[in-house]
Amino acid sequence: MNSLYSIPPELPGPEEFSETLVRSGEVVVERIISHGQSTPSGEWFDQERHEWVALLQGSARLMFSDGATLEMHAGDWTFIPAHRRHRVEQTTTNPPCIWIALHFPSHPS
Amino acid sequence: MNSLYSIPPELPGPEEFSETLVRSGEVVVERIISHGQSTPSGEWFDQERHEWVALLQGSARLMFSDGATLEMHAGDWTFIPAHRRHRVEQTTTNPPCIWIALHFPSHPS
Repeated sequence: MNSLYSIPPELPGPEEFSETLVRSGEVVVERIISHGQSTPSGEWFDQERHEWVALLQGSARLMFSDGATLEMHAGDWTFIPAHRRHRVEQTTTNPPCIWIALHFPSHPS
Repeated sequence: MNSLYSIPPELPGPEEFSETLVRSGEVVVERIISHGQSTPSGEWFDQERHEWVALLQGSARLMFSDGATLEMHAGDWTFIPAHRRHRVEQTTTNPPCIWIALHFPSHPS
């Protein structure tokens, strides 16, 4: 059984590591490991689905297009409604950031 | 911001602690803290929805009605399809078990 806390040996590479843990219908659970990466300058995530995201390890800063920022530390989580534009401003390298992201439909299912 | 790792001061009580973190349509994310509790003898969970469950802290043993058992340690997760009957056989007290459980529809949405 792969632990949510395990760090793959290929880290650190230039890219974030991500893996899909479960996919069922429009629901996806993924694990992401960031180690210093941030969203490229000027780019925003604008997602069709709601997202619940938790940071299991590390620290990170999210920014929203309305100007809000969110400092996250290990154990923090947030809900990002569909189409709330956001970007990852900063992620720690040591330790790497371990995220669990749940994507699910914004329409009542 | 409440951390997933925080232990409420009212522990240890006789009951599990649980809180809903997000509810949207048929999707629910909850946090559960078990400290020694198990499913009452002879009872099984038989759920209408799929469940993805992760153990962030502690150790626990799940049992399934087909006889399978699953030993879980901090960082382990599993997917329990709707109507797969299961019970919690054992949870550690020190440290308490911190679970994240995601419930979502089994029908394509």
